Amino acid sequence: MVASHGVNYATPRGFGTKLRSGFKETLFPDDPFRQFKNENNSLLRIKRAIQYFIPIFYWLPNYNFGLFKYDVLAGLTITSLAIPQGISYARLASIPPIIGLYSSFVPPLIYAVFGSSKHLAVGTVAASSLLIASILHGKVSSQDDPTLFLHLVFTSCFFTGIFQSALGFLRLGLLVDFLAHSTITGFMGGTAVIICLQQLKGLFGLTHFTTKTDVVSVLHAVFSHTNEWKWESAVVGIVFLSFLQFTRYLSQRNPRLFWMSAMSPLVTVVIGCVFAYLIHGDKHGIPTVGDLKKGLNPISIQFLNFDPKYLSVTVQAGLISGMVALAEGIAIGRSFAIMRNETIDGNKEMIAFGFMNIIGSCTSCYLTTGPFSKTAVNFNAGCRTQMSNVVMAVFMMLVLLFLAPLFSHTPLVALSAIIMSAMFGLIKYDEAIHLFKVDKFDFLICMSAFFGVSFISMDIGIMMSVGLCILRALLYVARPPSCKLGKIPDTALYRDAAQYPGTVTIPGVLLLQLGSPLYYANGNYVRERVLRWIREEGEMIECLLLELSGVTAIDTTGIATLSELRKILGSKDIKMGIINPRLEVLEKMITSKFVDVIGKENIYLSIEDAVEASRFSLSKIEKQNSVNESN
Amino acid sequence: MVASHGVNYATPRGFGTKLRSGFKETLFPDDPFRQFKNENNSLLRIKRAIQYFIPIFYWLPNYNFGLFKYDVLAGLTITSLAIPQGISYARLASIPPIIGLYSSFVPPLIYAVFGSSKHLAVGTVAASSLLIASILHGKVSSQDDPTLFLHLVFTSCFFTGIFQSALGFLRLGLLVDFLAHSTITGFMGGTAVIICLQQLKGLFGLTHFTTKTDVVSVLHAVFSHTNEWKWESAVVGIVFLSFLQFTRYLSQRNPRLFWMSAMSPLVTVVIGCVFAYLIHGDKHGIPTVGDLKKGLNPISIQFLNFDPKYLSVTVQAGLISGMVALAEGIAIGRSFAIMRNETIDGNKEMIAFGFMNIIGSCTSCYLTTGPFSKTAVNFNAGCRTQMSNVVMAVFMMLVLLFLAPLFSHTPLVALSAIIMSAMFGLIKYDEAIHLFKVDKFDFLICMSAFFGVSFISMDIGIMMSVGLCILRALLYVARPPSCKLGKIPDTALYRDAAQYPGTVTIPGVLLLQLGSPLYYANGNYVRERVLRWIREEGEMIECLLLELSGVTAIDTTGIATLSELRKILGSKDIKMGIINPRLEVLEKMITSKFVDVIGKENIYLSIEDAVEASRFSLSKIEKQNSVNESN
Repeated sequence: MVASHGVNYATPRGFGTKLRSGFKETLFPDDPFRQFKNENNSLLRIKRAIQYFIPIFYWLPNYNFGLFKYDVLAGLTITSLAIPQGISYARLASIPPIIGLYSSFVPPLIYAVFGSSKHLAVGTVAASSLLIASILHGKVSSQDDPTLFLHLVFTSCFFTGIFQSALGFLRLGLLVDFLAHSTITGFMGGTAVIICLQQLKGLFGLTHFTTKTDVVSVLHAVFSHTNEWKWESAVVGIVFLSFLQFTRYLSQRNPRLFWMSAMSPLVTVVIGCVFAYLIHGDKHGIPTVGDLKKGLNPISIQFLNFDPKYLSVTVQAGLISGMVALAEGIAIGRSFAIMRNETIDGNKEMIAFGFMNIIGSCTSCYLTTGPFSKTAVNFNAGCRTQMSNVVMAVFMMLVLLFLAPLFSHTPLVALSAIIMSAMFGLIKYDEAIHLFKVDKFDFLICMSAFFGVSFISMDIGIMMSVGLCILRALLYVARPPSCKLGKIPDTALYRDAAQYPGTVTIPGVLLLQLGSPLYYANGNYVRERVLRWIREEGEMIECLLLELSGVTAIDTTGIATLSELRKILGSKDIKMGIINPRLEVLEKMITSKFVDVIGKENIYLSIEDAVEASRFSLSKIEKQNSVNESN
Repeated sequence: MVASHGVNYATPRGFGTKLRSGFKETLFPDDPFRQFKNENNSLLRIKRAIQYFIPIFYWLPNYNFGLFKYDVLAGLTITSLAIPQGISYARLASIPPIIGLYSSFVPPLIYAVFGSSKHLAVGTVAASSLLIASILHGKVSSQDDPTLFLHLVFTSCFFTGIFQSALGFLRLGLLVDFLAHSTITGFMGGTAVIICLQQLKGLFGLTHFTTKTDVVSVLHAVFSHTNEWKWESAVVGIVFLSFLQFTRYLSQRNPRLFWMSAMSPLVTVVIGCVFAYLIHGDKHGIPTVGDLKKGLNPISIQFLNFDPKYLSVTVQAGLISGMVALAEGIAIGRSFAIMRNETIDGNKEMIAFGFMNIIGSCTSCYLTTGPFSKTAVNFNAGCRTQMSNVVMAVFMMLVLLFLAPLFSHTPLVALSAIIMSAMFGLIKYDEAIHLFKVDKFDFLICMSAFFGVSFISMDIGIMMSVGLCILRALLYVARPPSCKLGKIPDTALYRDAAQYPGTVTIPGVLLLQLGSPLYYANGNYVRERVLRWIREEGEMIECLLLELSGVTAIDTTGIATLSELRKILGSKDIKMGIINPRLEVLEKMITSKFVDVIGKENIYLSIEDAVEASRFSLSKIEKQNSVNESN
């Protein structure tokens, strides 16, 4: 028998204390300032704080040539990826290809200063590129007014930057958590499908096409212009695609050959350029990129367009694409950090991304983040620090200053092949199957994003899926499961009677375990559900015990629910007891005087105490029964 | 020492089973069909089902004269309230006063057939009346085109009915739960303030006024027309208001005098009529209602206006006012049922309200629900069944057929006094103070509704408050509290070390209790928080035990979080154990193969088992320490 100990009715904490602790748990759960806030020496504290906020001061002083060798190799590798990807994705965003190259020069330098991930490689991403274009196309056509369109792209990138850094400064990283992994899986898959379909334009060398992104419109555009199909283009495209897929296959078979798939896009571009130059591709059904000027990024701050006419669409494009880019960038930074056993502060990363995009939008760059493919290549190529991004920027500078015009001969079909090949990897069947097996609702969320993106539009698809996620979160809290506890024979353990058949209950006593917060959204449910438990028992219940260890929070409605329950039970001559309320819950019970209403003698520290007490209060005949059955 | 029992790894339930059980818990938590679904005799089952769905078949067959006596008295009392309230609230909705009287004839009859609450009295409500008018005024002015305005009011009432009955049929009563009690308190208070201010128009006999509802506009309208102020009107108004407040005060002091406050509005109207008739009020600064035609409700189905031009505004007015009316009607039905130890099915009530408003909108009625004041009067007057509503309808019919023209002499100032007096009771200082004391966030929610309604507009106020509530619900699930458990000396109990100072922990073993569902919105948080617990321990942790009794659900992200944690801990040579996963959680762990990853030997049924096992695996020196310290 266990000695009886009472519940601790210490005076509730003050409002200030609770607010501070709630604030800390909500916004600073990982205690990010631990690195410097407890430092006694104030000079050292300032130094640590600067190192925390601007990570380059942390890693650069200890940088050495040994690390540099690795970073140069990794930087060179990611540059070879950055050139074809930059050109391709800029075309996805319906802006001049050179902007894609500019975007691999300035932003990596900014990230090297403010970013905290060692492995993240900065670059443009396909999904966000297409997303910006598809939202802006709702207002302005890139064909009718390409200059205005480009300026709106810069402006939306500026808003992305403001939004991202604001989220970071306000420590609202938790917003990104509401983009569930299943949403992102579905969204990426759907995006990959529509991007692949878009590439049919380049593959078949079409000149007329649609600016819509859904499957039906795109297929219609492809098959309504069969007269424009160019077989030369298609043949070249399929050859390139096969080459890219083959190198990818080799790399997957043998991870040490990762450089083959990393280099193959650049090889494709170079071979394509030479080929198109030699056969004068433009005249033989193989259109090329055309017109890439030498020179570094021109300043574009004067092009930011805050005209109220376009404001809503640029803000919308900036926020949605920024959110998607953040989700990708942070998730990737985190997963590589976990692999290497390091931690990453999502809020700090947001600030770095934000600065990258604000400064980028003023220097002719568009939206950049940490793309998965480039980061994986960077990691595999053995990068050691953020220096690999600097190396990439330097190589990109050389390309912009001297080599850019050479790439003007790149056949469009080569770019299409590169994009398609990259997209194939983003459709994750196995992930979807895993979701289907483990959690049907997660699967539904994933599919709603996938089909929403493919058949309606990218922004609506992602919003549908996020809506479902939030609905699920609200359902979780509106319908918290409760269960009846019984005693496992020969132990002192009380467990869910449905989960552990064979548990013994005491006649006349109903022991229920509640869980989740008890509050306005589930007060009515919990009351009805508890009353149903009592009805379902059938036999005479004389005592209801509520085990509240799992109730993590309560509000005034939750307390009103318990009071109502007590009133209803009282009228049926059923006693009610509470077991082990947690700190926050007990505090509210004390301040709301619920403790006085129910009486301290009906609040127990442990199930044993409560069962013992209620057994004692049962009427004599019941008592006799319970002794017979429970032992 | 407790005997060791294992976790029950039964085969997870099939998808169908889980779906059915989830469906039932979500939509049918109170098992509403229990009354007839288990009936063996099929004739009896059908009879019970009809009685369930159409409650009049349940109570009418057992009805007798003894009950009727009480219902007639109650019905007469609420009629005396219905006449002045009907006229007053119709004026609040900017529609002809007679519509208010019509609305107390048809809807009560419908409710008597379909409604399940014995005490609810049907009628119009001030808040929803003003709400409809304020939303519709955004599109159409009731002064410029009163006929169109009236038709739009009917149409919005029709949409309210469709919406309410759809919610009921789909069993989405849980939506109403998201209108928290604190939101309603704030909303009612704010509405009462602006309605009182609106009455200054009637009190001062103003002719020019604003259709806006916010405090600033209304005060501006009152004080910018001081030249229109009529002292005669103000004097009469203050006399009436004093009379009404005095009877209210008497009734509150002595509940048996409730009839005094119930009758006083009718007395006010009658005295006002006689007074205005005798002195020819219209000519002496006391305008009257004017023009009330004899006759029953004309059919209005042909007036329902589905013109796309007005569709969005009528739908919006219908949904928002319908939601508010539902929240009031259901909450009131429930609280009186709890008083009398009966239960009410919110979804069935919604269907009844829906029918009431659909049929009402076709018979020249506008939005009706179960108003608090009338229901309380009905209850106090001793009503026994829904028959009291029928009695009211009959009396109202007599009034409409014979007496309506008499009320055309009612002075507007008398109506203003009646409304103001009713509104004073809706401002609940004590409730707000209670919220402030017990739960600051609830107070914030309440205040946002109060100030939003008073200073911005009714719909924005309520949306702000609901938004805050949902934000709170999401925060609850995004930041579930975790705590470190320690053993209370001389017991076998493990409790929160922060709540119960003096608990003993085993060196090298960290025992954490998680709570709430573990899923996409809090996966990152939980991982970071657990890692922080480990860091904060300072000393060498060799084993982390997670107590999951309070984790009511898990999704794929939640499982991924646990896997990541295990990987991170593995790299630090820390063992990880899981204690007492609940049925749903364990099922997902089995299907996702997490059980195989962590190993069944690391999943424990009880804290004791887990502590014993990890103590055994600690290195020898640690073990020595732990033996010394824990006993």
